Amino acid sequence: MAVNLPPPDPQSLYPVPGVELGVAMAGIRKPGRKDLLLLRLAPGAAVAGAFTQNRFCAAPVTLAKKHLKNAVRALVVNTGNANAGTGKDGLKRALDVCASVAKQLGCKRTQVLPFSTGVIMEPLPVDRILAGLPAVVAGNAGWLDAAEAIMTTDTVPKAFSRKLRLSGGEATVTGIAKGAGMIRPDMATMLGFVATDAKVAQKTLQAMVKRVADRSFNCATVDGDTSTNDSFMLVASGLGVEAKGEKDRKKLEQAVLEVSRQLAQAIIRDGEGATKFVTVSVERGRSEAECRKIAYAIAHSPLVKTAFFASDPNLGRILAAIGYAGVKDLDSDKIDVYLDDVLVAKKGSRNPSYSESLAMAAMKKPEFTVRAILNRGKAAATLWTCDLSFDYVKINAEYRT
Amino acid sequence: MAVNLPPPDPQSLYPVPGVELGVAMAGIRKPGRKDLLLLRLAPGAAVAGAFTQNRFCAAPVTLAKKHLKNAVRALVVNTGNANAGTGKDGLKRALDVCASVAKQLGCKRTQVLPFSTGVIMEPLPVDRILAGLPAVVAGNAGWLDAAEAIMTTDTVPKAFSRKLRLSGGEATVTGIAKGAGMIRPDMATMLGFVATDAKVAQKTLQAMVKRVADRSFNCATVDGDTSTNDSFMLVASGLGVEAKGEKDRKKLEQAVLEVSRQLAQAIIRDGEGATKFVTVSVERGRSEAECRKIAYAIAHSPLVKTAFFASDPNLGRILAAIGYAGVKDLDSDKIDVYLDDVLVAKKGSRNPSYSESLAMAAMKKPEFTVRAILNRGKAAATLWTCDLSFDYVKINAEYRT
Repeated sequence: MAVNLPPPDPQSLYPVPGVELGVAMAGIRKPGRKDLLLLRLAPGAAVAGAFTQNRFCAAPVTLAKKHLKNAVRALVVNTGNANAGTGKDGLKRALDVCASVAKQLGCKRTQVLPFSTGVIMEPLPVDRILAGLPAVVAGNAGWLDAAEAIMTTDTVPKAFSRKLRLSGGEATVTGIAKGAGMIRPDMATMLGFVATDAKVAQKTLQAMVKRVADRSFNCATVDGDTSTNDSFMLVASGLGVEAKGEKDRKKLEQAVLEVSRQLAQAIIRDGEGATKFVTVSVERGRSEAECRKIAYAIAHSPLVKTAFFASDPNLGRILAAIGYAGVKDLDSDKIDVYLDDVLVAKKGSRNPSYSESLAMAAMKKPEFTVRAILNRGKAAATLWTCDLSFDYVKINAEYRT
Repeated sequence: MAVNLPPPDPQSLYPVPGVELGVAMAGIRKPGRKDLLLLRLAPGAAVAGAFTQNRFCAAPVTLAKKHLKNAVRALVVNTGNANAGTGKDGLKRALDVCASVAKQLGCKRTQVLPFSTGVIMEPLPVDRILAGLPAVVAGNAGWLDAAEAIMTTDTVPKAFSRKLRLSGGEATVTGIAKGAGMIRPDMATMLGFVATDAKVAQKTLQAMVKRVADRSFNCATVDGDTSTNDSFMLVASGLGVEAKGEKDRKKLEQAVLEVSRQLAQAIIRDGEGATKFVTVSVERGRSEAECRKIAYAIAHSPLVKTAFFASDPNLGRILAAIGYAGVKDLDSDKIDVYLDDVLVAKKGSRNPSYSESLAMAAMKKPEFTVRAILNRGKAAATLWTCDLSFDYVKINAEYRT
């Protein structure tokens, strides 16, 4: 089950000049599936990234962070093996892949960023990856192919694209991502790659990727588990028009943000066992931080999530989650809660004119919003999450290699 | 399903002089079940409590905290209605119950502590409770009856008892509790009442209840959801021998702690849908706080909990939970993980001599321990938790009034 949108139309995904794609079936874990992707970047491209905060950081993440300081010429992504929990040997294997890519592209291995997702604690099958490299180095694939090549437990490819007008002319932003929960043997790393042909300084891009991540991928939570491999990369090939000045930068950032939000939401829609796509909006708090704390408490509560699954407008669970979120001086008597437009809790108690049937009707929809209004400030925060269903347990408990 | 121990033998539960019990079927929510309990205390009894930190704090909790300052003469506990999310009217109703108890016992209403568990956001049916009071005021019940009277979704009553020798003679400690997860319509508040006949100053008792709670009830977690009504009360009737000096105090605290731990563990064993009782032990950390953070991350991860359910020694999930627990300078390369005595991860990677069959055998047992050794200090912390099963989702999603 999932709450997916229709799969992307290949025609809607604009190529990004300066970013060439190669896809291959390298048989890394299973034969007959696209499992290797190479993004070849034009010389002078700027690349920026946001990475997992998990203290167990996989070998490719360690290398990607390090190589990001150089003039990046390629990103190589494999599924089927996460190269995580593999120690020094894992670093060496990831570097071997970078070296082989570099040799074929005529650059240095430190100009290649590696990304891996899949089984953890297994040695990366470098031989199979190397055998697949000539095909991706020579390849000329589209973004839908690329989106398919990074899927693990995803049930649909995730790709979005748009064009925008900067002062110097038209620019393109296209991105792909994969989710979803973490599942064995696939740890189901969140990977996101968004590319534009606009010309942007690396420093500007690095600031942008952080802000965009915080308002897109970092607002998406299936189960609160953060993978060891999560990475979000932003590429500006520089072959297109230059983003000049603050106005252009803002326009570009907005387009990148919109594509990234679509990708992040698509990950949640395809969450393991998801039957509901739920937006959690916490408003009128004193700070964004406290709004996020409360939104996470709601979105991560197994009791709230099973109530979502059951279309059960269980106010007690939602209010209790708000109450234990850790906002110390929160005045519970001021809080209003809405399910879509239905006011269910008023001033911390059940709305006197509460209608269970209206509340339930709101929750029966495959998509709805839980709004908690704290009535103590002007800050707000939004998260996207899904419900906790039988299938979540089934997928995560029964799946064995 | 549950991982319960055999139900308590009534003979093993020692009466506590100075604490008289009355139990009744007041039909608060359903007829024919024990749902009202009164603990009548001898004059001069000392009472101390630890309460929920949830900002949505139910009316009885607010009153119990307030009345605790006075010379407490009785504790009145009802199931079937939590009197939570009920605003000022809820406070008035709880106070009406206290007033009626006080009148019948010949004390002030501020000397009575109220406790409620059950449906939330429904008005407390004061009339039915008042109608049941004469029976509990006159009653002479045993501790097993008392344990049964506070059950909601619990499948077994929870009661433990022991005797100990203080310098002045023998003393008794007996306690009861109820769990388990939070469920609608029962929010399944955690309630614990532990009583001793020993004579202890209120101030000493208050310090003791906090320390004991931190090492017993606060180490138990089913789903991380903290109810609005959670309360743990410690009563020292003073009719028995005096706990004199530090040595006696320590002995008494140890006995109280042991009973409280048995109660807390019994709550986890009876957790909603639980099929495994899992001890999470984090050792050799720099501080108890960081050990607790990591233990909670393991115990609350839905992915780890479903792996427990599946007897799946999924190291990646456990390591990932350790990694995202929020201990910023944690060195993942130093961490060892054991499942019972089986070393599964060594220095942050899979143990080179890892045996999946040994690891799985450890996890197939209804009880096992996950030990994470941080190798960076001398502190430790232990939690008890259970797995996340189909039945957890079933109970919490399908149950409707």
